[in-house]
Amino acid sequence: MQHPAALARLIEALHGLPGIGPKTAQRLAFRLLQEGRGEARELAQALDVALAAVGRCRRCRMLAEGELCPLCASAARDDALLCVVESPADVIAVENSGAFRGRYFVLMGHLSPLDGIGPAELGLHELDLLLAAGQVREVILATNSTVEGEATAHVVGEMARARGLTATRIAQGVPFGGELEYVDGGTLAHALAGRQNVG
Amino acid sequence: MQHPAALARLIEALHGLPGIGPKTAQRLAFRLLQEGRGEARELAQALDVALAAVGRCRRCRMLAEGELCPLCASAARDDALLCVVESPADVIAVENSGAFRGRYFVLMGHLSPLDGIGPAELGLHELDLLLAAGQVREVILATNSTVEGEATAHVVGEMARARGLTATRIAQGVPFGGELEYVDGGTLAHALAGRQNVG
Repeated sequence: MQHPAALARLIEALHGLPGIGPKTAQRLAFRLLQEGRGEARELAQALDVALAAVGRCRRCRMLAEGELCPLCASAARDDALLCVVESPADVIAVENSGAFRGRYFVLMGHLSPLDGIGPAELGLHELDLLLAAGQVREVILATNSTVEGEATAHVVGEMARARGLTATRIAQGVPFGGELEYVDGGTLAHALAGRQNVG
Repeated sequence: MQHPAALARLIEALHGLPGIGPKTAQRLAFRLLQEGRGEARELAQALDVALAAVGRCRRCRMLAEGELCPLCASAARDDALLCVVESPADVIAVENSGAFRGRYFVLMGHLSPLDGIGPAELGLHELDLLLAAGQVREVILATNSTVEGEATAHVVGEMARARGLTATRIAQGVPFGGELEYVDGGTLAHALAGRQNVG
């Protein structure tokens, strides 16, 4: 049966979100127009406010309100270390590890020529200007451990070396607490290749 | 780390939706503020339009633009049959079965005294007025096959009988195409109790 036009449009808009299929979109729309009208109003307003207020940090391209994100605005971070990641979620993951006190650069993606994502889309020119400014000494390549992530790390690493800087790649290996029996072969191969002296 | 306020508000609003946890909400928000800004704008507008345009059908309480939903406005449906369901999604499920040509009444929930959902919230007074109007001859109880759904069906069935109408409950049994081996015991018990003569 046919939905009312405004309902059909809402279902379509929800269906456009990642990970939300047609059935879930319909369930969400019904919920938002029945007992969830307050939530629907709040969501519409939150979207409007966020679209108007949230842009990208001028320096690291992280999502930010205003010119600079809090991490770039902070005086307590180490300017010599620059961690290059693919997405804002990766910044949060690294921050939550508590193991890094430097700065970030967020590519907002990875090199993917078939999808039209090249150096310009990833802000590699801005990254090069940052590297040329002279404060960064080490570039930590923390892109994903995928084919595209590795290719992107390779290109950024070349850029760093061309500026005479150290480029490092985060270690690949067995996850903390991981049991060898359940670790996949590719991970195990990387863990073996990356073995280090002990004691 | 702290999100910008507008971003935090958007994540919170998305997290309020059913089936969307904090991680998914964050992923959705990042997506909507990066490559999905067009989708975000469309979603905000679709929410505004739907909140303004979509209300409830005056007669059956289904979500509708305008006074009456298309099913109640249609002259081609059988007024003598009234199918009582819990939600708009149930109307769509029954319509999609193609096996029903009567009218609907949508309770928008089931009796749940602990959650403060009683006869008033389910519109049982409006339902009684509809039954009293004299067109309905049979009330088909198509609430869910849950404890609350059964209790609700029982109450609505009593209302129908008090008006001298036939009340029927949709059959419970083995799903079409279902293999006995994989059917749960409760369903099988209902299927046995509801066995019918053949040939």
